[in-house]
Amino acid sequence: MVYFDNAATTYPKPQSIQFAVSDAVKSYGGNPGRSGHRVSMKVSEKVFEVRQKAAAFFDAEPENVVFAMNCTHALNMAIKGVMEGGGHIITSCLEHNSVLRPIDAMAQAGKVTYSVADVYESDDDRTLQSFANLIRPETRAIACTYASNVSGTVLPIRKLSALCKQYGLVFIVDAAQAAGMLPISIKEMGIDVLCTAGHKGLYGATGTGLMVLNEGAELGTIMEGGTGSNSLELGQPDFMPDRFESGTLNTVGILSLGAGLDFVAHKGIDEIYRYEMALCARVYNEMKQMPNVDLIANSFRLGEKAPIVSFNIKGEDSTAVAEYLSGKGYMLRGGFHCAALAHRYFGTAEQGAVRFSPGHFNKPQQINAFLNEIKKIEKNGLL
Amino acid sequence: MVYFDNAATTYPKPQSIQFAVSDAVKSYGGNPGRSGHRVSMKVSEKVFEVRQKAAAFFDAEPENVVFAMNCTHALNMAIKGVMEGGGHIITSCLEHNSVLRPIDAMAQAGKVTYSVADVYESDDDRTLQSFANLIRPETRAIACTYASNVSGTVLPIRKLSALCKQYGLVFIVDAAQAAGMLPISIKEMGIDVLCTAGHKGLYGATGTGLMVLNEGAELGTIMEGGTGSNSLELGQPDFMPDRFESGTLNTVGILSLGAGLDFVAHKGIDEIYRYEMALCARVYNEMKQMPNVDLIANSFRLGEKAPIVSFNIKGEDSTAVAEYLSGKGYMLRGGFHCAALAHRYFGTAEQGAVRFSPGHFNKPQQINAFLNEIKKIEKNGLL
Repeated sequence: MVYFDNAATTYPKPQSIQFAVSDAVKSYGGNPGRSGHRVSMKVSEKVFEVRQKAAAFFDAEPENVVFAMNCTHALNMAIKGVMEGGGHIITSCLEHNSVLRPIDAMAQAGKVTYSVADVYESDDDRTLQSFANLIRPETRAIACTYASNVSGTVLPIRKLSALCKQYGLVFIVDAAQAAGMLPISIKEMGIDVLCTAGHKGLYGATGTGLMVLNEGAELGTIMEGGTGSNSLELGQPDFMPDRFESGTLNTVGILSLGAGLDFVAHKGIDEIYRYEMALCARVYNEMKQMPNVDLIANSFRLGEKAPIVSFNIKGEDSTAVAEYLSGKGYMLRGGFHCAALAHRYFGTAEQGAVRFSPGHFNKPQQINAFLNEIKKIEKNGLL
Repeated sequence: MVYFDNAATTYPKPQSIQFAVSDAVKSYGGNPGRSGHRVSMKVSEKVFEVRQKAAAFFDAEPENVVFAMNCTHALNMAIKGVMEGGGHIITSCLEHNSVLRPIDAMAQAGKVTYSVADVYESDDDRTLQSFANLIRPETRAIACTYASNVSGTVLPIRKLSALCKQYGLVFIVDAAQAAGMLPISIKEMGIDVLCTAGHKGLYGATGTGLMVLNEGAELGTIMEGGTGSNSLELGQPDFMPDRFESGTLNTVGILSLGAGLDFVAHKGIDEIYRYEMALCARVYNEMKQMPNVDLIANSFRLGEKAPIVSFNIKGEDSTAVAEYLSGKGYMLRGGFHCAALAHRYFGTAEQGAVRFSPGHFNKPQQINAFLNEIKKIEKNGLL
């Protein structure tokens, strides 16, 4: 079994993750922040350590790191929190449904209006202009992905950040496909709210996500509840991170995320990124030579892509291709990738796409064998 | 170390939980419902098995079981989902902030109005009347706890359910302190939306909660995003459970919850409940004889209480008592228990309360030793 679906969730995880979840259940079983007793304090300290690690990782203050269930949860908090008072928000055509659907739901309820900017591969200025053209007096925020989960396309985050500063907009970034691979300093890059999954490039267990706030972003809440603080007050606390962390934390997941962050820091994001990109480059370049393969993205360059290569075999349904490959031992996602507009943009709304997303634990030999299989399909069709 | 804080989260967990989280990371690492490949399908099947187990446990249909981050998440989905269109909601004075704060936040935003019913220990008819008196033409729902996390007091769920049916109200029940101990059939008891934690009496890992819908409850959503279904549509799916499960599921937590449900089913909820209640009864009856101990609840009878005994030492701050006990090796929660109104109701808004909440793994000898420690404090004060 060869797993090439790391954009969905990284697998396998480093051994330390397996140990972390097991140890969390065994040795850190209290409820953090809820009691003063030793068992609770012990896990509180561990959770705070992970908060510090995540803060250091994204160049934020520890109290501005919010633990979420997944990136979707973080994005809902961010988008709905920022847009609570209404207004106009701009997003891109490459967004995951975790960005599009919360925005669209708010729009359907008459709370906000929104516009969708086109993205141009390898032409950041044109992309920037397409966002700038959509800014109106009532525009309050730009929410966009760092890198597309369909094509891997990286958006010009620094330029978009500067645009937001120029117009006083809140900048929300979905880093689900970027965190752990592309460098992110929210302070230096001027990202107001960073949202990411914990179980992808950060190697935590499932059930983990992060919302990381820069200073100054004031957000409403989508959930309220017990926080172990201000307990006698009916109102949700207004301080960080309690304001956004109601109910018992996923300590098992959080501790695994701590181990994941350690893993990434130890390997180095640059090395992780370059290695996975090298695997992708090989697939991209070989597929480019295959007449019956359509590649979704037009180019493949370091820094311009996350390590994702999506493709189709001419005339074959992407789901059928992925199923066939699964039968041959290669785990790739086919069909549609929870990105309603991206498939229309790439002209794959009928066929979907097969997504190759390697991970740190894949080996070059696996790529060779996989490409041989693709060559067979490409020549002979699905048998 | 003797852990008496099981109302916060059960600890230790059965050994099977530790194995389940470790095995989930190792062997079930795909993203369920997102791909057709074998690694994804394998975990999809496991997740569905847990959905079936939870459904059987609460007498619901599997597709109406929604996996949540914690009970607070489930309650926010339930309350905000039901009250999306506005109206009046009734809750009780014994609620956890996970019920009160979402309601109060909606009220502060001008979306709903609410009333708080008093609860009378050992007088269910009076409690029922206090709810009934608050019903108005625009009342849409009753949301209340099955059992108080402060006093253990059980509310007359069946009678309240009948009241809801009589007036066409949606009945939302917070079973965080009841699930796994008191019998719950949502069909037979007429509960429209059941919310519970997965990491308390159901013995799953932290990061788990459940919202279980009976037929007919139509709810709005508080989060939208990728569901692996209807991917080309901007609108959130309207079918269960996808409508309420956006983003990558906490498969590690869910698989541990499956092991927890197996554990509870194997032991039998009646036996678990009776055992823990026997430990509580011993503490309650002994403390009743101690002149310097104030008990929060007025009675202690099977079926009328969850296994919780909250108390104070006269003249001593509850946090200080809990800290002192922690130093002696007994883990109990002191202070306020995320229940803004309950402490006012019990007259403990100043002192808070020390909460004794035993678990399945506590032994009678531990209770004896603990009571000896309490006797010393009660006689001599904190030293």
